[in-house]
Amino acid sequence: MSRLVDELKRLPGVGPKSAQRLAFHLLGVTREEAERLAEAIIAMRGSIQLCELCNNIAEGPHCPICADPKRDHTTICVLEQPNNIMIVERTRQYHGLYHVLHGSISPLRNIRPEDLKIKNLLERLQAGETREVILATSPTTEGQTTASYLVRLLKPLGVKVSRIGVGIPVGSELEFIDEATMSESIEGRREL
Amino acid sequence: MSRLVDELKRLPGVGPKSAQRLAFHLLGVTREEAERLAEAIIAMRGSIQLCELCNNIAEGPHCPICADPKRDHTTICVLEQPNNIMIVERTRQYHGLYHVLHGSISPLRNIRPEDLKIKNLLERLQAGETREVILATSPTTEGQTTASYLVRLLKPLGVKVSRIGVGIPVGSELEFIDEATMSESIEGRREL
Repeated sequence: MSRLVDELKRLPGVGPKSAQRLAFHLLGVTREEAERLAEAIIAMRGSIQLCELCNNIAEGPHCPICADPKRDHTTICVLEQPNNIMIVERTRQYHGLYHVLHGSISPLRNIRPEDLKIKNLLERLQAGETREVILATSPTTEGQTTASYLVRLLKPLGVKVSRIGVGIPVGSELEFIDEATMSESIEGRREL
Repeated sequence: MSRLVDELKRLPGVGPKSAQRLAFHLLGVTREEAERLAEAIIAMRGSIQLCELCNNIAEGPHCPICADPKRDHTTICVLEQPNNIMIVERTRQYHGLYHVLHGSISPLRNIRPEDLKIKNLLERLQAGETREVILATSPTTEGQTTASYLVRLLKPLGVKVSRIGVGIPVGSELEFIDEATMSESIEGRREL
């Protein structure tokens, strides 16, 4: 029982009290119900893996996006986390492929470039199909550091490297914009 | 007394009750104090005017920015309101001139292009010193409409016209970005 409580406590948002409550609940269900839950956990963990190409969550060796011949296979959008893919997909404007780094460079949290999934990005570029890499890491300190690192790494390979636009969000009044964003917004102005 | 209450009620954030409270307060002060306040209002209103060139608030015919020979007189940053100048100045990155429209085009609020201070912008451009006009209206519907209107008006004059960057604000995680901003951010990506 205490082993189960300990395991449950590792779940996000589950404290010692909730863990105990959940454990008692599982004690009360039928043996079949408990087994069904345990099996579902094991089955999920067994079927989910990372796409060999882009590191997105996948149920087979390739994720549905990499496997889709209708996507534009000449463009790769580089993201920090798998859930960022959804953010870009929702715009219905990007039809290329992705590459998930599973993190960003952070000296503070001791995350180095070699801790990110950069190796298979280089392998994809060596395959020669890619014309543009869009660096879509967040404009946070860590995301910017990661983007700068990748530019230096990728430019010598002769591929076009671009950075998503940093600036004033749609719908915002200039009045409420911080200095750093206003500065980037002027710096990144586009000729019309 | 009721005329004073009516006048005070026109001030922003002053309701009927505050107006009455202020009026009673002014009734209690000495005649000299009341006159000093009245004179200060008149003096302020008399000394403040709009810069003939850029429509910024000025105490003479030209505002301090237009009158400064050290500013870059070949670039004009177009803004909606005088207080937006401060936002851009705080970046310490822009050293050109400004042009304040005093509003933005809004069919809903019945504000038409002819209601904005566009005429003296055209006069400034005709003087021939300007090389670039940066449209820095907010990325709101009204600000975008105004920017689109100005591009069509200014491009034929042969001047370089640019738009400030719309995108993800500095420090934001991709996760919290709305679709419209993400879309502009991809659209407005910059080659590195």
